[in-house]
Amino acid sequence: MGIFSKDIKTMDDLFVHTLRDIYYAEKQILKALPDMIQKASEPQLKQGFQAHLGETKNQVTRLEQVFRQHGHEPSGVDCPAIDGIIDEANDVAGEVEDKAVLDAALIAAAQAVEHYEITRYGSLIAWAKQLGRNDCAALLQENLDEEKAADKKLTSLAESRVNRAAA
Amino acid sequence: MGIFSKDIKTMDDLFVHTLRDIYYAEKQILKALPDMIQKASEPQLKQGFQAHLGETKNQVTRLEQVFRQHGHEPSGVDCPAIDGIIDEANDVAGEVEDKAVLDAALIAAAQAVEHYEITRYGSLIAWAKQLGRNDCAALLQENLDEEKAADKKLTSLAESRVNRAAA
Repeated sequence: MGIFSKDIKTMDDLFVHTLRDIYYAEKQILKALPDMIQKASEPQLKQGFQAHLGETKNQVTRLEQVFRQHGHEPSGVDCPAIDGIIDEANDVAGEVEDKAVLDAALIAAAQAVEHYEITRYGSLIAWAKQLGRNDCAALLQENLDEEKAADKKLTSLAESRVNRAAA
Repeated sequence: MGIFSKDIKTMDDLFVHTLRDIYYAEKQILKALPDMIQKASEPQLKQGFQAHLGETKNQVTRLEQVFRQHGHEPSGVDCPAIDGIIDEANDVAGEVEDKAVLDAALIAAAQAVEHYEITRYGSLIAWAKQLGRNDCAALLQENLDEEKAADKKLTSLAESRVNRAAA
């Protein structure tokens, strides 16, 4: 985006900008997940991250469909928010030695990522509908539903196993 | 935190570290809100941000109570996540000229902040309970309930007024 020009003029521009933001974010998450899988100890957590890696690949593909449906080539834009969330996850994970405490920290980090995606997809879906793009909204809703389900699974895993082991 | 030492050894350390993270985050939000109030045009949105500024001050006070209940002096720790979320909000707002589109962008930015807080309070409450600190969990739950209510109000304002005006 230009520093001296105001490049977001319409809600359509805001929609496309935010689509580029979440596209970049999903790709950063794809890069971060293998490290989280490697760091996780609890078998269900490791497996959950592994499953989410597959889901994230599908989500990137769905975003590419949304771009094309809306007449744009898929492209990302810098997203300081997801960069900050991932940097913080790495910083905290680097501070933890105990495997059970690290699992609890990894769950919290993953839920911060999920919540970022949940809020962005929520805005994008509302804007897509307002712009008359129910086709785009439907694809974005599939991504949102998966993120919400992933977040719930992480809460349940934290409460049923991981936090008890860490305490 | 030390670069060469692993300073988070127990779940209690992780709880205190994350408490310091959200304490820093709430204080950054206190600094960011006056600018958002000034930028908002829709009267209900402006008023909503104003009300949330008052709530945020109370949330900071509650966090200070949690620190003291748990035997620590209140202090913050750098939080790249909230810094990134706020930087991104400023970047996007700086790109938008139209007042109605700016209101839609401000709502999305505020919801990204709310979701960050929602996820951190969720983890903190679960850990506080696991650590037997139901007193801390109860105060953190008050903050979480306010953040969830603020997020819902923003969704409702976006869907009922702001997005229509911006489209």
